[in-house]
Amino acid sequence: MHIDILRGTAVALPQQISDTLAQRITSGLLAPGSRLPSVRTLAASLAVSQMTVSKAYAELEKRGHIVCSQGRGCFVAESAKGQPDGSASWQAGYDDYLPRAQLWRNFDSLKVKYPFHLAAIHHELLPLAEIGRTMSRLVTEQPELMGTYGNFQGDQELREVMRTHLQARGITLPSTELMITSGTQQGIDLVARTFVGPGDTVYMEAPSYTGAIDVFAGRGAEIIPVPTDREGMRLDVLTRLCDRRKPKLIYTIPTFQNPSGVTLSMARRQRLLELARSYGCLIVEDDPFSDLYFRHSPPPPIKSLDRDGHVVYIKSFSKVIAPGCRIACVAGSGDILSRLIAAKSASDLGSPLLTQRAVLPFIARKYDVYAAGLRTALRGRMEQAAQLLKQYAPPGVSWSLPEGGLNLWLKLPPCANIGKLHTLAEAESISFLPGEVCHAGDQESRHIRLCYSQMEEAEMLQGLRRFMELLDSYLRSLQC
Amino acid sequence: MHIDILRGTAVALPQQISDTLAQRITSGLLAPGSRLPSVRTLAASLAVSQMTVSKAYAELEKRGHIVCSQGRGCFVAESAKGQPDGSASWQAGYDDYLPRAQLWRNFDSLKVKYPFHLAAIHHELLPLAEIGRTMSRLVTEQPELMGTYGNFQGDQELREVMRTHLQARGITLPSTELMITSGTQQGIDLVARTFVGPGDTVYMEAPSYTGAIDVFAGRGAEIIPVPTDREGMRLDVLTRLCDRRKPKLIYTIPTFQNPSGVTLSMARRQRLLELARSYGCLIVEDDPFSDLYFRHSPPPPIKSLDRDGHVVYIKSFSKVIAPGCRIACVAGSGDILSRLIAAKSASDLGSPLLTQRAVLPFIARKYDVYAAGLRTALRGRMEQAAQLLKQYAPPGVSWSLPEGGLNLWLKLPPCANIGKLHTLAEAESISFLPGEVCHAGDQESRHIRLCYSQMEEAEMLQGLRRFMELLDSYLRSLQC
Repeated sequence: MHIDILRGTAVALPQQISDTLAQRITSGLLAPGSRLPSVRTLAASLAVSQMTVSKAYAELEKRGHIVCSQGRGCFVAESAKGQPDGSASWQAGYDDYLPRAQLWRNFDSLKVKYPFHLAAIHHELLPLAEIGRTMSRLVTEQPELMGTYGNFQGDQELREVMRTHLQARGITLPSTELMITSGTQQGIDLVARTFVGPGDTVYMEAPSYTGAIDVFAGRGAEIIPVPTDREGMRLDVLTRLCDRRKPKLIYTIPTFQNPSGVTLSMARRQRLLELARSYGCLIVEDDPFSDLYFRHSPPPPIKSLDRDGHVVYIKSFSKVIAPGCRIACVAGSGDILSRLIAAKSASDLGSPLLTQRAVLPFIARKYDVYAAGLRTALRGRMEQAAQLLKQYAPPGVSWSLPEGGLNLWLKLPPCANIGKLHTLAEAESISFLPGEVCHAGDQESRHIRLCYSQMEEAEMLQGLRRFMELLDSYLRSLQC
Repeated sequence: MHIDILRGTAVALPQQISDTLAQRITSGLLAPGSRLPSVRTLAASLAVSQMTVSKAYAELEKRGHIVCSQGRGCFVAESAKGQPDGSASWQAGYDDYLPRAQLWRNFDSLKVKYPFHLAAIHHELLPLAEIGRTMSRLVTEQPELMGTYGNFQGDQELREVMRTHLQARGITLPSTELMITSGTQQGIDLVARTFVGPGDTVYMEAPSYTGAIDVFAGRGAEIIPVPTDREGMRLDVLTRLCDRRKPKLIYTIPTFQNPSGVTLSMARRQRLLELARSYGCLIVEDDPFSDLYFRHSPPPPIKSLDRDGHVVYIKSFSKVIAPGCRIACVAGSGDILSRLIAAKSASDLGSPLLTQRAVLPFIARKYDVYAAGLRTALRGRMEQAAQLLKQYAPPGVSWSLPEGGLNLWLKLPPCANIGKLHTLAEAESISFLPGEVCHAGDQESRHIRLCYSQMEEAEMLQGLRRFMELLDSYLRSLQC
């Protein structure tokens, strides 16, 4: 069992151990009936005292997560979820390298009526009929597209279309400096597996995209959070931090940041790039939302300023046109890109050719007009959601209006227990993203993230109103 | 720059370093004009003497790969391939964790006339028109399939179909114990990132699937090769090896092994499972070919014998019905599977729903009849290829007839230099897989792998004949 122990934090060691185990148990990663390692074994493997592990187990037993008996050891408590089988006896002790066991990861979005947790765009707003027609034509006229592996770097024609697309956004480079990945998540994963290893320092905004945190943590990186203000990542803080620990990589979502919504100012974009140059490190610029602005178009991407290949820029087309096609574009240069292409080959032998060709004509010819319409539609929804919040959000709940993107980032009063709220909401078939999963480590968070674009509009407004009512009655019950 | 140094092998340290760098340069992972780290820096980072690095650089300069000048340092030699830019100055020194720099990985299969290196089935033999019709219907009738994320574990209906499919092959389990991945490569990658870390011991057949070697090596595993004989992996040897180093994981392709073609006997399947039970370790059973037998159906999968969840079974549907749909099925149980699902979410947020639904009706209703026809067709090709080899293969070249699968595994005489042969073949637009990439570490190999099913039949026979003629004239030129 792999448990990250953080020494020198405010959280006592027994609690760190019991919290991690409790999370694994409630998320189903440790099955009912599984035998936990003995106190002696776990203490040895974590290099802590047996007393520490005993305290952690006692706490878990008190909370009903495990059952211990003299001589037999401790077992995950049975629940209605399932019965133990032969596998339980050895699997719980089989070490893994999973970074965190997140409740929301096991969340099946199809089963929730109001899935506010997932940052996505409702399918009615997406150009799926159009892309479907292209796909239908392709499979009829060129069925062999489904029968061949593409090249690892991505379809040459699509890369050419992406080149033109990026050029219109200030990024000028040849299509040989582009790679197609299965969504942004894979792009981040490829960078991490190629360039980040145990002990390497990765800086990122706090809070940040939970999928990126997972990936870097999974590589054993030392993730150092950098606070943000209205202009985005605090470069003054980052500069001081880098003095102490040289950066291997800086991960940023500079535009309509996920989850906070803030945008990195132009001056800071330049300074960030200078910092990367001076340290000879990479910036991963994750850009899912820059086309989804509500009033002003955001500053140009950091990549547009990059002369020496310090920026790996990842632009998602997944969220914005067809999540099911899983297409993102990665821009990099020189050896950095060649090594990413090698990693892509080991990861999945290249993205499917069919989906690449299916989105190609749309991106080439209709994307810009579509994006303009989408911006209007999203702004309308966001404003309706904000209006409703203004009317129904309980006192003590605050937020700022986003300038783009898909999310609202709400701050709850200090007395609210977000885990408890999550359980209450789940019972009403409402989901949200707890802010704590947007932080590396076990930092507490008073925030939650709600996506206003994932449902049909009336449904979203209904769900949001219900959630605010639930939040109101929960906060009242606390009398805070 | 990360270079794996193997101490205590027959290969001298300077040569290990120069070989790795040469491979990176010829494969394009180190671009022309890139500055190499200074002798002092590289020596320090590899913990070798400066003399060792100096020798390696001298060798590289002699071979024309780099150019060194007093005071300025060493640079990758310019070639026709490209010009250096600003990126070259720092990128070469930016550390990565790529396991190997493989020439063939950068191979663009679309540009080769006779791509014998790629184990695949020619699209004329695949049911692409059928799957295309389903896909066309789906995108017309349910375009929202392209607009939603599926669940991380894979589509419930497809898992139900897979359950029935596996049951007919001796594997009985509920669909909750199945997961859908983007091809076998991703399945192996998920197991590796979840359960294999630096220093963990992974046993596998030698030779084995190069994509699996890359993935385990990329996790920092200690890969220990196990020799094979006619009954597959030598369990007697494996048992002795496990005494010395406890296995974390055993990776095997028991049926029509890639690349050697051998099949693990039933008795050994049982013994392998017992071994895994006694060590509390996982077996990854990679099964791309068991439906592609020529005479007798092979022994049942190891997974069919598994009672306690020691086997993660990966069945590819990619190769056999539609590589472009990238569908494989992973069977596991208990905590092992839950942890793999968590890793899948961090890897790509789940496989696309559309491609899962597109293959579903075919697998449910037509797969078995199709597979019978495919076996006949493949056997016909294999026999024709074998006939041609018999007629044209030069003396000293040997092979055994495969009982199933897609590959021929040829052994060349000791005097042949396979790297040289590869270059000669490339000039004739013929590619093959050099045996050495099927070995972890830098083991020499006298084998090459040829796939007989990737091209249209007449084309394949023509290419094979040309290749044999080329091989013949090459061997004659050596006078060996």
